[in-house]
This record gives sequence, structure tokens and C-alpha cells, in this order.
Amino acid sequence: MARKIITITRQYGSGGREIGQRLAQSLGIEFYDNRLLEIAAKDSGIHKNHFEENDEKRTNSFLYLLSTTYGQGGIPFDDTLFFAQLNAIQKVASEHACVIIGRCADYALRDFTGVINLFISAPFEDRVKRAIEVYGIDEKHAADYVKRIDKQRTSYYNYYTDKRWAQPQNYQLCLDSSALGIDGSVKLIEDFIKFYYKD
Amino acid sequence: MARKIITITRQYGSGGREIGQRLAQSLGIEFYDNRLLEIAAKDSGIHKNHFEENDEKRTNSFLYLLSTTYGQGGIPFDDTLFFAQLNAIQKVASEHACVIIGRCADYALRDFTGVINLFISAPFEDRVKRAIEVYGIDEKHAADYVKRIDKQRTSYYNYYTDKRWAQPQNYQLCLDSSALGIDGSVKLIEDFIKFYYKD
Repeated sequence: MARKIITITRQYGSGGREIGQRLAQSLGIEFYDNRLLEIAAKDSGIHKNHFEENDEKRTNSFLYLLSTTYGQGGIPFDDTLFFAQLNAIQKVASEHACVIIGRCADYALRDFTGVINLFISAPFEDRVKRAIEVYGIDEKHAADYVKRIDKQRTSYYNYYTDKRWAQPQNYQLCLDSSALGIDGSVKLIEDFIKFYYKD
Repeated sequence: MARKIITITRQYGSGGREIGQRLAQSLGIEFYDNRLLEIAAKDSGIHKNHFEENDEKRTNSFLYLLSTTYGQGGIPFDDTLFFAQLNAIQKVASEHACVIIGRCADYALRDFTGVINLFISAPFEDRVKRAIEVYGIDEKHAADYVKRIDKQRTSYYNYYTDKRWAQPQNYQLCLDSSALGIDGSVKLIEDFIKFYYKD
């Protein structure tokens, strides 16, 4: 039986993380979200705070200032953080079956075989609603907040990979989670995985 | 039971048409590909040749010349053709359950409820192979041909709709047909339809 490796790229508020969590649970495999940052921090010796501050967004000016001081081997600090995460993703995928959320995991595992890359989207209004109800974002600013996270993730993905964010050809399956809901989406992806790995 | 209306937008050579055909067959519903052009021609009184020449691509200079002569109600001729197709799509979807291939059907039916919009892609190399093997395109020019059709369809879709071609958020489901093959893709979409329409 092939080792199941599933990456999920998700629009903020689409429920992609929850879908991934439930999927990992039902498949009985590991789930990696920001746990990856801990692994990257531990393996690289760089403090976890730096990974958290820079998580799935391009660096801020403070990190630019650090670049010359802490960059390893002449590489800017933000790139060092990205490569440490890349290593962490490749390490866990080499060790065991897992679901990995975000962090350009599809790109990190581009040379691995048998990886399923998924993209989860949802209509903008649904994502704003989820931002308010699930993540507790202030109603007044929720729409702006969702737009900003969209921009951050897009910019991060396009900068660090040789692909463009949200292009169906980068994924075997893209799913609008509002069509079937969270439960239905999990079920459909389970079917996809069953067909794909033929088990 | 809801009337099943399924639109399929597909990259050239992805097998999206065949998937749609098999889907329509297994669901026992109508299938519309270039049959739509016949309906549009019949209903509009414009000769079918014009629809065929202009099918899913922006107009050529000859049609621009015709614009002032044959355009109806001050509308350029290529727009007249597009609107006639739009009417044909809306007509068939109002009458019965169906699968509709290409021709901006997702846009034409944007105000209909319960429509499933699918996007079928495949890796470029697979599409070139299919162009040669299934559509008999000369091996020497097949890659260029696929690129050209990609450009035509993208340009046509972006011009006539208020959306951008190949954006996952325009579809409930995007599928890379190479992941599960044609048979597997049909099966997965059948599952999606079953969950979606809850029957």
C-alpha cells in the first residue's frame, strides 16, 4: 500500500484546515499545520517566534534588518526560514503518511511520487462568515482581513515557488467547500484518495 | 429531485468532453457540445457556419468586416453570435437536465440555481499526447496547437465573462483527469453529483 501524502493549499476561511484535520483522523495518519514550524525551529536552531511571525507571508522590514546578521550562508533570513520549513516538510513526508496544510507543501514535495495536492476554496462571503464565527475576527474588519490574508498567501506562494497560486493545473483536485459542506468535502476527498491509491 | 445541470469547462486535450459524455450517459441526461451551435443557428436564423468558425475563439478580421453589415441592434456580429449561444444554453438548461461542454456555459447559467460547474485539466504533456492520439493532430505541431487552443479559450472566456479562465473559485470542482484517468474521473464526479443533489 502506497504511503499517503496529502497537501492542502487553502483559501483563508475555506475550512481547508478542518477538512485536512478530519481527513488525517479518518485515514489514521499524521496531521501537520503549524506543528511544522516547531520542527523547522528545532532542526534549524532558529527560534520558533521567527517562524510564527513570518508564517505564510513575505517578510517584514524587521526581518530584512536581521538578514545580514542572521542569514545563513549568505542567504537572506526570510529565505533561511523558508528553506528550514521546506526541509521539515520533506522530512515528515519521508518518514510517514500525513496531511500537510499550506506552507507551499505541494512545491516542497514536487519531486516526491504519489503525493496528492488539493486546493480548497469557498465563496468570499462564506469565508468572511467563517472568519467571524470560527476565528473570532471583528465583524467590522473581517472582509478586509480575509482580503489581506489572501494577498499574503498569494504573494508568499508566488514568490517562493515556480508556480502561481490558485491554478487548477497545480492540483489534482480543487474543491469549493461550500458545495458539499465540510463533511461532504471530506467524504469526496476520501473517495478521491481511495481511487487514487487504489485501495 | 433537483434537475441536474452540469457545465464542464475543459483544457483542450484533458478528456473533459469524453468525461462529460460518459457522465451524461450514466446519468441518463442530455449532452450538449457543438450541438448547441445548431440550436443557436436555428433560433437566431444565422448560418451555422458562422458559429462553427467562431466557436470558443475571439472573432477574426472577416467577422469584424461583417459586424456593421450583419450585427443585430447595433451589436457587433461576434457578440451577436455569443448572445445567440447564450440563449441556446439557457434554453436547454430551462427545459431539461443536461451536461454542457465549454462555451462559457457556467457564465450563461450564473443566475440558475443548482448548477454544478466543473473544470477539467490535465498536464500539458498528456494533453499533447491526446491531441495526437485521439484528435489526430500532426505530432510535429501538436504542442504548438495545444498552446494556441489554450490561448483562444482563455481569451474567449475572459472577454465574454466577468471572470477569469481557470480560477478554482469559479467551479465547485476542478479535476486533473490524469490523476484518476477518464473512468476514475467520471466515478468521482458521479459521487460529487450524488452528494451535491443529495439523491
